[in-house]
Amino acid sequence: MSRSIRLAVIPGDGIGPEVVAQGLKVLGSVLPSDVKLETREYDLGARRWHATGETLTGVELDSLKQHDAILLGAVGDPSVPSGVLERGLLLKLRFAFDHYVNLRPAKLFPNTATPLAGRPDIDFVVIREGTEGPYVGNGGTMRTGTPHEVATEVSVNTALGVERVVRDAYERARSRPRRKLTLVHKNNVLVHAGHLWKNIFDRVGQEYPEVTTDYLHVDAATIFFVTDPGRFDVIVTDNLFGDILTDLAAAVTGGIGLAASGNINPDGTFPSMFEPVHGSAPDIAGTGKADPTATVLSVALLLRHLGFEAEAARVETAVAEDVTARDGSFRTTDQIGDALVSRVLA
Amino acid sequence: MSRSIRLAVIPGDGIGPEVVAQGLKVLGSVLPSDVKLETREYDLGARRWHATGETLTGVELDSLKQHDAILLGAVGDPSVPSGVLERGLLLKLRFAFDHYVNLRPAKLFPNTATPLAGRPDIDFVVIREGTEGPYVGNGGTMRTGTPHEVATEVSVNTALGVERVVRDAYERARSRPRRKLTLVHKNNVLVHAGHLWKNIFDRVGQEYPEVTTDYLHVDAATIFFVTDPGRFDVIVTDNLFGDILTDLAAAVTGGIGLAASGNINPDGTFPSMFEPVHGSAPDIAGTGKADPTATVLSVALLLRHLGFEAEAARVETAVAEDVTARDGSFRTTDQIGDALVSRVLA
Ligand SMILES: CC(C)[C@H](C(=O)O)[C@@H](O)C(=O)O
Ligand SMILES: CC(C)[C@H](C(=O)O)[C@@H](O)C(=O)O
Repeated sequence: MSRSIRLAVIPGDGIGPEVVAQGLKVLGSVLPSDVKLETREYDLGARRWHATGETLTGVELDSLKQHDAILLGAVGDPSVPSGVLERGLLLKLRFAFDHYVNLRPAKLFPNTATPLAGRPDIDFVVIREGTEGPYVGNGGTMRTGTPHEVATEVSVNTALGVERVVRDAYERARSRPRRKLTLVHKNNVLVHAGHLWKNIFDRVGQEYPEVTTDYLHVDAATIFFVTDPGRFDVIVTDNLFGDILTDLAAAVTGGIGLAASGNINPDGTFPSMFEPVHGSAPDIAGTGKADPTATVLSVALLLRHLGFEAEAARVETAVAEDVTARDGSFRTTDQIGDALVSRVLA
Repeated sequence: MSRSIRLAVIPGDGIGPEVVAQGLKVLGSVLPSDVKLETREYDLGARRWHATGETLTGVELDSLKQHDAILLGAVGDPSVPSGVLERGLLLKLRFAFDHYVNLRPAKLFPNTATPLAGRPDIDFVVIREGTEGPYVGNGGTMRTGTPHEVATEVSVNTALGVERVVRDAYERARSRPRRKLTLVHKNNVLVHAGHLWKNIFDRVGQEYPEVTTDYLHVDAATIFFVTDPGRFDVIVTDNLFGDILTDLAAAVTGGIGLAASGNINPDGTFPSMFEPVHGSAPDIAGTGKADPTATVLSVALLLRHLGFEAEAARVETAVAEDVTARDGSFRTTDQIGDALVSRVLA
């Protein structure tokens, strides 16, 4: 492992820059002193698009590629037409850098408010496929804008794409105490894609006899997310189902202010990208109300991905302590960041 | 309105026949004495498929078509490969009879257990599109079973299909006290279908100035289902998102034992079909544990659809009273049915 990290930083829009600042503060505080952190900021997102009409140039993509990892705050603003930044920037990065493992842990910390009665034990991780499915951008319209318009969206699923993420999920499940893996799909309706997923899930599973497996339709899975979330350990699912389930997971574990994610290219061919699951929340930008914890937890995922396991654990412990100690009194974004730094250094 | 009802009954598998029996009992008890109820039973589902290999013949489809409505219990069994009965029977009926409005009310009754803390007020209805989207069965596989397999699923959306269901949703929203309609889609990623939905939603909305409108991405919608379900009044959404959201809605309103649905062809060209949202639950079939309430509430939707508004309301009131009076002691399927009949007749 090299003792320097070249980190690309995309602060983005709204609260993005505010939470990223705290993430970098915590990262700086936890890294061993002999590790050199080189950061380079990229001005991408709504402001940039308004100014230049660009979402992400080929030159920027090449430049981003020269990094060990990417930290992203949040991009988007209501002033930008829906889809422009999502397809032109966020998904473009995930696809260009082959982020086929979209890792989204869901953990209910003691003391965190949850909308669920009875405070179930929740500690699972969703492995969301990140480069296929309904997200490929395949589809179009004909007779556009007429009463005869037809609009299609094509979900494309490949054996290669499914197998690599399923394999990653089995590996992660094997390394956890409960060793349980649940496939979520809708193979009774989306029979072509569903059977591909199920067949590969079953075949690869034969190589992991120590992992208990389970299959749920996506609709049934949402029921268990609220009635019995404790049953889940590792979940593997497609890109769209993963999008939906991880927001629901964030909600039941105390909200999107704590939900971290890693867009991971396990091969290491491209830099992986770490970002909070939440959006740019323009309504609270500049007020100091943004909770940087999801970004800090994303930094922990980044550290782990780069091989700094002990440092990742220290950040996670700091967050767990901080969250557990919360008494409901208001703290600014910056104050939460400082508190986390203190705990990391303690 | 004709004073006779020709009702096709598909009891189906597992608990299907048990809950349908109670639904018919309540229906018989509430109908005015001058209304003749003619029922005809269709032996469709897993048992039939095992016996004959058939899911639904053309002759049966023609025969079903000669009815005013269809009451369905539940179809499916683990012994049947996933997709066979769903595509060959359930979805075939929805598509052949152009059930473009899939109506799914979500109401939290007083006293019903909900997994949500704080017992929010929940009273909304989801209008799920029923004949388009990812459910069309368009797609396939190539290089099937090889490491190079590609599987696709095509979501097909038409202006005609979207406009008619959106219009129906505005009509229903207008007739409710709160007059609020929320479109749920994912138009920042599924841009082609999403923009078609959003454009039509906005255009038709101009004809309904009294209806307040709102748009949510499906992932964000799941968050509000658990953190603030009271914000919803009427929701209109696509076939797959509607499938997912209505199971989640059932979960937060006390479970799938209370969730009713109507597969409606508002034009009246074809018979509409009413069914509980739950499945055939083979694990509890024959034990008397099945709650027939979802089927009885589906019967209320059936009555309303056929113009028996007062009778529909009586059934709904009976259910509300029965559910509110529950004290947790066990009652069989039959006992719950009897209790509902008593309340209807009271
Ligand atoms: C912003 C959007 C494109 C994105 C997604 O749908 O993946 C977001 O919802 C997420 O979950 O990261
Ligand atoms: C059984 C299945 C085909 C069906 C669906 O996906 O529509 C069910 O989940 C439902 O919601 O009615």
